[in-house]
Amino acid sequence: MTSFAAQDPNFESRVRQSFSRQQFMATIGASITRVEPGEVDIELHQRDDLTQQHGFLHAGVLASAADSACGYAALSLMPPGAAVLSIEFKINMLAPAAGDRIVARGRVIRAGKTVTVCWGDVTAYSSAGEKLVASMVATMMTVQGRGLTD
Amino acid sequence: MTSFAAQDPNFESRVRQSFSRQQFMATIGASITRVEPGEVDIELHQRDDLTQQHGFLHAGVLASAADSACGYAALSLMPPGAAVLSIEFKINMLAPAAGDRIVARGRVIRAGKTVTVCWGDVTAYSSAGEKLVASMVATMMTVQGRGLTD
Amino acid sequence: MTSFAAQDPNFESRVRQSFSRQQFMATIGASITRVEPGEVDIELHQRDDLTQQHGFLHAGVLASAADSACGYAALSLMPPGAAVLSIEFKINMLAPAAGDRIVARGRVIRAGKTVTVCWGDVTAYSSAGEKLVASMVATMMTVQGRGLTD
Amino acid sequence: MTSFAAQDPNFESRVRQSFSRQQFMATIGASITRVEPGEVDIELHQRDDLTQQHGFLHAGVLASAADSACGYAALSLMPPGAAVLSIEFKINMLAPAAGDRIVARGRVIRAGKTVTVCWGDVTAYSSAGEKLVASMVATMMTVQGRGLTD
Repeated sequence: MTSFAAQDPNFESRVRQSFSRQQFMATIGASITRVEPGEVDIELHQRDDLTQQHGFLHAGVLASAADSACGYAALSLMPPGAAVLSIEFKINMLAPAAGDRIVARGRVIRAGKTVTVCWGDVTAYSSAGEKLVASMVATMMTVQGRGLTD
Repeated sequence: MTSFAAQDPNFESRVRQSFSRQQFMATIGASITRVEPGEVDIELHQRDDLTQQHGFLHAGVLASAADSACGYAALSLMPPGAAVLSIEFKINMLAPAAGDRIVARGRVIRAGKTVTVCWGDVTAYSSAGEKLVASMVATMMTVQGRGLTD
Repeated sequence: MTSFAAQDPNFESRVRQSFSRQQFMATIGASITRVEPGEVDIELHQRDDLTQQHGFLHAGVLASAADSACGYAALSLMPPGAAVLSIEFKINMLAPAAGDRIVARGRVIRAGKTVTVCWGDVTAYSSAGEKLVASMVATMMTVQGRGLTD
Repeated sequence: MTSFAAQDPNFESRVRQSFSRQQFMATIGASITRVEPGEVDIELHQRDDLTQQHGFLHAGVLASAADSACGYAALSLMPPGAAVLSIEFKINMLAPAAGDRIVARGRVIRAGKTVTVCWGDVTAYSSAGEKLVASMVATMMTVQGRGLTD
C-alpha cells in the first residue's frame, strides 16, 4: 500500500469528532477504533436488530460501516476546513457476515484534490478465525466553501 | 420497463413475510409499501438517529433500504423454495437525502435462473416536492437447496 | 427522464469534434449518431475482431462504447472550455451481445458543477428484434483549467 | 492475498487457449504474460489507435484488459468443462494511462461454486517509473452445461 501524509496535523481529532456526529453509527453500535493518515477502522458487533431475514448482518449494515470507514480515511488526508461527501460506492458480499466482531477498514488508494478513491474491507472475527466478508470501492469528494465542515 | 410475471402465486405474502424477518428494517423504521412482480417499494422517514455528520440521512441507510427493495423485487420473481442473496450493489448519491419521507423502489431489469439484476431508485419527498437522491444497481442471486428459504 | 438544457450553444459540434479525436472509437468502428443535451447515442456493428472467446462482442467493447456515450452525454451539458474525464463506471452484462447493430445510449441523470452521473444502456438490434444487453452507471468529472479541453 | 489451488491440472494451457480465441485482445495488441492459479497478467502497449480525445489510452481499453485478466484469473480455478462469463465489473480511473507498457493483473479474492469475485489492477510502466492507473472489481460466473466451454 502507498503511505500518505496528513495535511492537517489535527486529522485524528477531526475525524473522531466528525464520526461522533454520525448518529447512525451509534444506532448500529459502531465505534471508530483506529485513525491513521489514509486509513480508518470502524468496529461493530453482531446484534439481532441488525440482521436480514436469514439472521446474518444486513448487507446495508456492512455497507454503512465501510462507507464511513472509507469516508473518514479520505477525510484524514483533506486540508483543514474541507468536508467529505460520498459520491458513490460499490460493495461485493463475499461470505455471510457471521462473527462476533466486524471490522470495516477504509484505505485511500488515490488522494486527489477533488476526488479520493478508497478500498473498504469488511472482516468478521469469531472463535473460528477471521474471514473477509465484504469488499468495497468508494469514491469520495472533497467539498470546500459550501457551508459544510468536518 | 419490461413487465414480469411471478412464478409463485404467493409471491406477495412470501416477500412481506421475509421482509418482516429483516430486523434491521425495523431498526431503521422501514416498511414495505408495495409488492408487484419484479417491483417493490420500501419507505422510511427522516430520523435523527439515522443521520451522518451533516444531518442528512447516512448513505448507508439509503443503501440498506435500496438493497432490500432490490432483493425483494428479485425474490418476487423466484420459484417457491428459493432464497435471495445480494451478490453486490453499487449506489450513487445524487443529492443530500433531505425530505420527510424516503421511498426506495427496486425494479428487476433482468431475471435469470441464477442471477437477477435490479435498479434501485431512492426518492425523497418533502413539502418542496420530490427529488431523486440515490440510484443503485444491484446483482442478486437465486439460492436453492442450501438450507435457506424466503 | 429529466430534461436538460445545454449551457454551450455549440454543444453538438463540440461533442462530435471531441468524439472524432477518440481514435479508439474508430478502431472499434463506432460512430456517434445522436447528440442531444444530456443524451448521446453511439453505434457499432458486430465484427469478428471485437469478439471474446465464445464469439460474442467482448464486454470491454460494450463498456468502451457506453463509457464514451456517457462521457459525451455529460460533456453536452458542460460550459465552454471544460473537459470531461471518466471517474469510474460499472457495467452489468445482461445478455450475450448478439446482434448486427449495437447502440450505446448515454443519459445524464444528475448534472453537477463537478460531478455528473449518467446511465448507459446498450441495446442489440437484429432481425429477431431488440434486446438490452448491458447497463452502465458512470460518474464523470468536469475538468477546468488543467490544460485539457473538449 | 489468499492463495488458491487449481482444480484443473491443465489450467494454464486452458486459459491461454481461451485467451487466444478472444479476437478483441489481438485487436488491442494485448498478450497474456502470466497465468497462476487465481492470478493472470495481461499486457498491452501505448498505441495511437487506442486513445481517447486527450491522447491517453481510452478507459474502455483499460477495462477490456482488466476484464479479461479477471475473467481468466477466475477461469484458472474452475473445474474442467466450465466456462466463464462476466456478470459485471466496476472500474475506477485513478490517473491518466500514460506509459509505454500497461499491465492488467486479475486476482481472485473469492472463488465460489457459481460466483467468483476478482480485483483487477492496471499499472502503467514508463521510464518515469510505475503507476497504478485503474482499479477494477469484477464478478464472474461459472457456467456449466449450456454449450459453452473454455
